[in-house]
Amino acid sequence: MGEYLREDIGSGDITTELLVPPEQKGTARIVAKERCVLAGVLEASEVFKELGAKAVVKRKDGTVAKPGDIVLTVSGPARSLLTGERLALNFLMRMSGIATVTNHLLVRCRKINPGVRIAATRKTTPGFREFEKRAVSLGGGDPHRFGLDDAILIKDNHIMVAGGVKEALKRAKGSSFTKKVEIEVETRKDAFAALDAGADIVMLDNFGPDDARALYGELKKRRPEVIVEVSGGIRPDNIEMYADAADVISLGWLTHSVRSIDFSMSMDRT
Amino acid sequence: MGEYLREDIGSGDITTELLVPPEQKGTARIVAKERCVLAGVLEASEVFKELGAKAVVKRKDGTVAKPGDIVLTVSGPARSLLTGERLALNFLMRMSGIATVTNHLLVRCRKINPGVRIAATRKTTPGFREFEKRAVSLGGGDPHRFGLDDAILIKDNHIMVAGGVKEALKRAKGSSFTKKVEIEVETRKDAFAALDAGADIVMLDNFGPDDARALYGELKKRRPEVIVEVSGGIRPDNIEMYADAADVISLGWLTHSVRSIDFSMSMDRT
Amino acid sequence: MGEYLREDIGSGDITTELLVPPEQKGTARIVAKERCVLAGVLEASEVFKELGAKAVVKRKDGTVAKPGDIVLTVSGPARSLLTGERLALNFLMRMSGIATVTNHLLVRCRKINPGVRIAATRKTTPGFREFEKRAVSLGGGDPHRFGLDDAILIKDNHIMVAGGVKEALKRAKGSSFTKKVEIEVETRKDAFAALDAGADIVMLDNFGPDDARALYGELKKRRPEVIVEVSGGIRPDNIEMYADAADVISLGWLTHSVRSIDFSMSMDRT
Amino acid sequence: MGEYLREDIGSGDITTELLVPPEQKGTARIVAKERCVLAGVLEASEVFKELGAKAVVKRKDGTVAKPGDIVLTVSGPARSLLTGERLALNFLMRMSGIATVTNHLLVRCRKINPGVRIAATRKTTPGFREFEKRAVSLGGGDPHRFGLDDAILIKDNHIMVAGGVKEALKRAKGSSFTKKVEIEVETRKDAFAALDAGADIVMLDNFGPDDARALYGELKKRRPEVIVEVSGGIRPDNIEMYADAADVISLGWLTHSVRSIDFSMSMDRT
Amino acid sequence: MGEYLREDIGSGDITTELLVPPEQKGTARIVAKERCVLAGVLEASEVFKELGAKAVVKRKDGTVAKPGDIVLTVSGPARSLLTGERLALNFLMRMSGIATVTNHLLVRCRKINPGVRIAATRKTTPGFREFEKRAVSLGGGDPHRFGLDDAILIKDNHIMVAGGVKEALKRAKGSSFTKKVEIEVETRKDAFAALDAGADIVMLDNFGPDDARALYGELKKRRPEVIVEVSGGIRPDNIEMYADAADVISLGWLTHSVRSIDFSMSMDRT
Amino acid sequence: MGEYLREDIGSGDITTELLVPPEQKGTARIVAKERCVLAGVLEASEVFKELGAKAVVKRKDGTVAKPGDIVLTVSGPARSLLTGERLALNFLMRMSGIATVTNHLLVRCRKINPGVRIAATRKTTPGFREFEKRAVSLGGGDPHRFGLDDAILIKDNHIMVAGGVKEALKRAKGSSFTKKVEIEVETRKDAFAALDAGADIVMLDNFGPDDARALYGELKKRRPEVIVEVSGGIRPDNIEMYADAADVISLGWLTHSVRSIDFSMSMDRT
Repeated sequence: MGEYLREDIGSGDITTELLVPPEQKGTARIVAKERCVLAGVLEASEVFKELGAKAVVKRKDGTVAKPGDIVLTVSGPARSLLTGERLALNFLMRMSGIATVTNHLLVRCRKINPGVRIAATRKTTPGFREFEKRAVSLGGGDPHRFGLDDAILIKDNHIMVAGGVKEALKRAKGSSFTKKVEIEVETRKDAFAALDAGADIVMLDNFGPDDARALYGELKKRRPEVIVEVSGGIRPDNIEMYADAADVISLGWLTHSVRSIDFSMSMDRT
Repeated sequence: MGEYLREDIGSGDITTELLVPPEQKGTARIVAKERCVLAGVLEASEVFKELGAKAVVKRKDGTVAKPGDIVLTVSGPARSLLTGERLALNFLMRMSGIATVTNHLLVRCRKINPGVRIAATRKTTPGFREFEKRAVSLGGGDPHRFGLDDAILIKDNHIMVAGGVKEALKRAKGSSFTKKVEIEVETRKDAFAALDAGADIVMLDNFGPDDARALYGELKKRRPEVIVEVSGGIRPDNIEMYADAADVISLGWLTHSVRSIDFSMSMDRT
Repeated sequence: MGEYLREDIGSGDITTELLVPPEQKGTARIVAKERCVLAGVLEASEVFKELGAKAVVKRKDGTVAKPGDIVLTVSGPARSLLTGERLALNFLMRMSGIATVTNHLLVRCRKINPGVRIAATRKTTPGFREFEKRAVSLGGGDPHRFGLDDAILIKDNHIMVAGGVKEALKRAKGSSFTKKVEIEVETRKDAFAALDAGADIVMLDNFGPDDARALYGELKKRRPEVIVEVSGGIRPDNIEMYADAADVISLGWLTHSVRSIDFSMSMDRT
Repeated sequence: MGEYLREDIGSGDITTELLVPPEQKGTARIVAKERCVLAGVLEASEVFKELGAKAVVKRKDGTVAKPGDIVLTVSGPARSLLTGERLALNFLMRMSGIATVTNHLLVRCRKINPGVRIAATRKTTPGFREFEKRAVSLGGGDPHRFGLDDAILIKDNHIMVAGGVKEALKRAKGSSFTKKVEIEVETRKDAFAALDAGADIVMLDNFGPDDARALYGELKKRRPEVIVEVSGGIRPDNIEMYADAADVISLGWLTHSVRSIDFSMSMDRT
Repeated sequence: MGEYLREDIGSGDITTELLVPPEQKGTARIVAKERCVLAGVLEASEVFKELGAKAVVKRKDGTVAKPGDIVLTVSGPARSLLTGERLALNFLMRMSGIATVTNHLLVRCRKINPGVRIAATRKTTPGFREFEKRAVSLGGGDPHRFGLDDAILIKDNHIMVAGGVKEALKRAKGSSFTKKVEIEVETRKDAFAALDAGADIVMLDNFGPDDARALYGELKKRRPEVIVEVSGGIRPDNIEMYADAADVISLGWLTHSVRSIDFSMSMDRT
Repeated sequence: MGEYLREDIGSGDITTELLVPPEQKGTARIVAKERCVLAGVLEASEVFKELGAKAVVKRKDGTVAKPGDIVLTVSGPARSLLTGERLALNFLMRMSGIATVTNHLLVRCRKINPGVRIAATRKTTPGFREFEKRAVSLGGGDPHRFGLDDAILIKDNHIMVAGGVKEALKRAKGSSFTKKVEIEVETRKDAFAALDAGADIVMLDNFGPDDARALYGELKKRRPEVIVEVSGGIRPDNIEMYADAADVISLGWLTHSVRSIDFSMSMDRT
């Protein structure tokens, strides 16, 4: 949490230093203002611990909170509570926003296709991916690749440089046997080429829901163990149309366009 | 950009290393897919420069881009273009989302009150504040305090610990003469107490638009050089009601609940 | 304290490792050798805590110590006491030197003008500003701007580039409403131009004491809420001549030319 | 230079960003305002280079500058010149202050004893030792140990813990054959014990000049290759009394109580 | 390379600074003293580039060098060549040692089983894994997992905590669909349990070569797409016995017990 | 330990997070599988402490362990034990390998020459020198210079640039009086030149054992306090031939070509 506190504190929390004596103690509660799936409670606790205060988790990450629910209580030097307040809330607001939307979409899609996965992408806020991916997981989603190093994912520009789907997959065989190989395709033809060249995962990029659904069926029939993912242009308002069109639905929306959940901290009068 | 690239690259961009020979060169264009106020073009350029590629800005930060507009062209090692693509787009998407909304709200409010300022808050993504504040500025907004060190801002919890508005402002006089003193109040009475105790800025927290407007008039009459800010519960759907109720309208929405703008990168066939 | 300890310890405190067994415990006292206003006691404690020893503050930062006064007692692994000794003393010596001179000058000037402030500048030791500014505050001084980010301060070279006082202040209006605007002027004419253009603070640079005093009176008469600062060529031997010539007297001397205060640490025989 | 620039710039040089357009170019000169031995010219150049400006050294580190001498010229983005000005001057002021005093004391002592060395101590500003030691060297002084890792130096508290001079030196034999062993003694008896136990360097701590001179003669007679250092309570006003009392005179004054040298930067009208 | 240079240089390369003037230029050659598969040439180049010298690769990483072959030529400030020499050679020596042994074992095993892979483990030198894994790849080996984040690998202690192979694999289904699942087993029974529970990779730990070979056949027959790895107690002197007993042979030896290859740098007389 | 854990953990220990609940506790033992001189027990403890587990040292660094000896017991969150296992073992394996070989060679050489020292070189793994040097010391060896900053060591390329042994040593007199001066020579003539020019240590580089022994005797006779070191081409199989040919025998082998010692960790069933 050190670097995040430094971002906010800079050369000092001048207001708190002037108004609050160092020996003053205090207690506070962090309260949810909206119904949500909680994420960031752990991070909020760590913010206060780093500042020398004690935090007690009242509602765990991954559970549902209702408006008015106390999520975390904190006690210790009043200065620590005041200095850590904003950062702790910033973690909670953004992460719970992501977990809540992820869970909401998952529930809607699983009504249609109980086995479907909702996955994030690498469209995350620079420097904050660890927390955004964790929020997706807490909402029941799949974090997908963390970054460029933990799975092969061959995208349109790679295919163009490599000279085609087949050639790209052939070169990908040079990867470690510990890595899965995924490829993004934009046509039926390329999807079958990818399947036949041994891709572990085939991502159908920017297919309409009906085309995706049809192709999904054919691909699974030809090689049942292949994983089919749809991606591209999927938003909360059209995701259910894709619910039975793939094994996995991935959308950047989960991490780049989510509304934050409101939380507040109140200190107790002493 | 180093730390952000390390977040994405980890121990290596294994796909690109397998598919693209180190000596291969390439060129690419980054294109806006929606109308927006651009922000992040500078950061996107720096991503590619850090990776040893050359970036040419075609549309500057702060200007308007239309769908299809080329924003940046890049050339250099194909590996650098592919490895930097996602991070560069992530900067552009999020920052342009913020600049666009900020500008949109500013334009709407200034139709009603030509001198009003729209300001951000400290409700930013941990670790990414520098860029979110810059995006607000590029959209014509006011970045407000960067952090806890560059202005005095006395909030509800501070007042409670200090024992009231008057006492809090008295202690705040201990600050450097180079800093402004702002205080957040929730009642008319506290607003006048703050004014009389010499606050440079009075923030009306969670006032309805009519109450805020009335109080704003009285406060400016009593001390014209005071700056009045409204905050709390302000969203794109109610902001215009506050347009003539203060000198400054601040809202966390600008940095915590904005939808990203879509951009894409296409490599040229060589 | 980590980075400062690393600077001194490098690859290891080879003397202590050879001479003192890891399990040996010890106690020690840090004693002031001269009368001074203390600063750095907190930092000295943290040095020992970081090394796993316990430190008890006997005289607080900001209070006066006399020769022979015990300032801090320390106990724990003898290795930690020996390895931390020099760094702890280095903080105390330099910071107390600054606090003592600041307080001395403040007392002298306030005899003449009870409301005057003595302020530091940005003429600090690179990397050590946080502690030098804190020492000024502990001596009763005003830390002034911490750095380039927390207030607008328009200096001679800025005015030249901007094309004059009026134009510079006009552009400075683009700053956030949370920031004060200060400008440095070298002539009467520019001082009035600055006043009329709305500067919050006017700094009279390199004025003689009589000219400054006269101008100060005129400026305050014209706009009472303006803050007037004098700076340039002010040293301990001429500062009293400026005591009633401004609201604030700033001098680099406080942080760049101060003699350190002597402290020593003695370990107790066990 | 990165970390030092970040200390001063924080979240941005807001004055310069408002007043100076990014594309504006400028040139400037850094001029000495007092006679001095220069130190910090290299560091000042690097400050500007790091900010993308070009610096040309006109007077080298270690040479003498007279009032009015141009030390460095700089050209490039006007923003870089303005943002780097203070940090560059801070390096020059403090480092030249140290080099000048060191050289002054060396010249005075060598008139009495042409072979004597003037050495620094570890009484440096935390985080800035590298530059303070370099300034001592540029003034003709000896930097002494850089830190706790590059020579054995057995001090009073070590001797007490180890149980005496002889025992301490015996344990010090466990050090690498690549390291010299120095010991600090406070009595004649301990000085001879140290000599006989094979210390490479004997430091006479807090001896008066006459006692030191007499003992120095005896020690060198008994073992000519031993190096004798005097330290403790030595200041510019008494150093000459020690000039012929040792091979090396070390004093903390060089780095902890030196007055800075005045420099200024002027931008050229364009 | 910065952190590695700092480890070696510390507060300064005092020998080179004393003996070599800053303006002196030089050229040098790095020569292999033994036949080897080269690795670390890239890193050696970067060491010199970071110090401001120019490096020209004469033999690429992954190729074979014979005794006397010039691998790299360097030119630039003589100080840079001398200061970078040891670090550059340290990269070359260790990395080429690893690449050479890896390649040697691979060639030997592929004579017996042309499709077999030789893989590294996580038994690497702390802080140096990136380079040790790269050296394995350059020798033709498989780097295996980079760390704990890029594939699921269920080991003995995990199985014990989870309560058996089946339960462990069931929980592992919670992982992202982008990750492979590998499990380490010590008995035939567990191997089949792992196969049936859907492990992507089954690692036979500490099996004798004959038992491994027999089990390998049975597992591949039952599920041809499973990957079988042998590990545990495999060394250069017994690896050929495992050549046809698995798809992949992994051994810690490649990174923890390899003899370095000798290289030297000679500067040219100027 | 933070940076080393980050290398292994990356974005998360995904296996352990899936298989082991956060609240589960466990205990484990680390056991030596071979006879060795222990090194790295301290580091292994710190790995677990950093992860929030408790470690109890059962066999100290520098002592001998036999196969089956428990070296460390650990207790705490089962996740911490599993996540820290590999890194802890990696420290132990490599460091104990180095300590064991160092001690073995020392014992063999001291049978021939009881006063001889066995020393390491700077041929260490980049980034891991601190631990490799410590392992040499724990095995009874001399760590030699830590890096380029703690002693003068004039090597072949330095002599060539400086223009000969005499000139090089003359320039080296400019170093601090706190540093020893060592020089590497390749001929008898240079050895005597170095001796006469006042080198503290003369290193005979690449001399055969008989030539070294003869020259050693002559040098010590001419100046008994000089230290003579042999280096170059010394390996475990020829080191005894040099045992009485110098005061110090240094060999890179100790840190660059040592076989690791096997250790394992077993968790207890709970």
